[in-house]
Amino acid sequence: MKIEETFIKDLVIVEPTVFGDERGYFFESYSKTKFDDLGINIEFVQDNQSFSKKGTLRGLHYQNPPFAQTKLVRVLEGEIIDVAVDLRKDSPTYGKAFSVLLSAENKKQLLVPQGFAHGFSVISETASVMYKCDQFYNKASEGGIKYDDPSLNIDWGMNLEEAIVSEKDQILPFIENCNSLF
Amino acid sequence: MKIEETFIKDLVIVEPTVFGDERGYFFESYSKTKFDDLGINIEFVQDNQSFSKKGTLRGLHYQNPPFAQTKLVRVLEGEIIDVAVDLRKDSPTYGKAFSVLLSAENKKQLLVPQGFAHGFSVISETASVMYKCDQFYNKASEGGIKYDDPSLNIDWGMNLEEAIVSEKDQILPFIENCNSLF
Ligand SMILES: Cc1cn([C@H]2C[C@H](O)[C@@H](COP(=O)(O)OP(=O)(O)O[C@H]3O[C@@H](C)[C@H](O)[C@@H](O)[C@H]3O)O2)c(=O)[nH]c1=O
Ligand SMILES: Cc1cn([C@H]2C[C@H](O)[C@@H](COP(=O)(O)OP(=O)(O)O[C@H]3O[C@@H](C)[C@H](O)[C@@H](O)[C@H]3O)O2)c(=O)[nH]c1=O
Repeated sequence: MKIEETFIKDLVIVEPTVFGDERGYFFESYSKTKFDDLGINIEFVQDNQSFSKKGTLRGLHYQNPPFAQTKLVRVLEGEIIDVAVDLRKDSPTYGKAFSVLLSAENKKQLLVPQGFAHGFSVISETASVMYKCDQFYNKASEGGIKYDDPSLNIDWGMNLEEAIVSEKDQILPFIENCNSLF
Repeated sequence: MKIEETFIKDLVIVEPTVFGDERGYFFESYSKTKFDDLGINIEFVQDNQSFSKKGTLRGLHYQNPPFAQTKLVRVLEGEIIDVAVDLRKDSPTYGKAFSVLLSAENKKQLLVPQGFAHGFSVISETASVMYKCDQFYNKASEGGIKYDDPSLNIDWGMNLEEAIVSEKDQILPFIENCNSLF
């Protein structure tokens, strides 16, 4: 298991060690003890999986404290552009977005800490995305930011006119009007 | 989340609730609180994933106490015949095998308790299998039973002459010579 830092503090990319043989391959996609060894002490309590067709854009979402979630995001099939936006008011990178291509092939995982909004776009025909969370789903505490906020200037890797976006996500505010509690 | 019992005590099949919409679908593949509500109190600490080509047979494996593992097994891509063998000496179903078809489509998960050997065969072109464990990998405590033990009489859904099996799995003992510590 390998860890790569990003320009945003606490937002890191994790890469598992893959063992190949004549049958195929094997890897530990998560190990509490290996994460602890890397200094990441998290108790994950929920695993989510979504399947989306090309052009789908989910996000940008967060849950407010005390239901804030750390998410460990990876792709099971396909390719996505995965995005995290720093919403921690006291952070030097507040309001900055980080993007990374996650795929079933590169097996990269983005560890999105509490205090971030998260979203992704699907750039392959379909994509299955899974993420572990350290806090349960709590609809009432959900908040979000509109994916096309010009201050974020995110390259979602597709024509946004054709994006498949949920009704909930189409009416999210820009970051300047977002009342996140981080 | 729905639970289905099998003829072996504590060995159950879990089925998640899937929410579909115009983007694709979403489901919670695991939720600690929902499992607790079903009376299943487990602390998972490791997630594993393996990819195998058609004809691969992995198993039958277990880890001895104190490293015995509960496993929650599901398929991300493809179809497998998933098998659990009861090795609990005081169980009325000791030495009995249970099989179930797990697929990305049916989204069934087999909850294999401590005290069982586990294995699977791949009957689709390829298959990605993932399983959560409540105890870390511990090579020294590993044990196994040969997949073609006649007393188990398991239907692996393929011609065993052509099975792709690791060297380690080819030399496992039959259950009558297995010195498991359950
Ligand atoms: C997120 C979630 C949704 N659901 C249900 C509610 C809806 O019926 C259905 C779809 O929910 P939606 O919020 O529209 O899914 P979504 O895929 O748009 O939401 C997700 O987007 C990701 C970018 C974020 O990282 C996630 O935290 C989550 O917000 O699934 C759960 O049961 N549990 C959950 O944890
Ligand atoms: C099981 C495991 C293997 N490995 C490494 C050891 C080897 O280099 C490589 C392949 O290991 P193998 O034991 O040959 O993989 P395998 O796929 O044959 O073993 C698995 O079979 C399943 C049926 C069981 O449910 C699992 O508990 C496990 O025994 O992966 C880990 O690093 N962590 C683990 O948890």
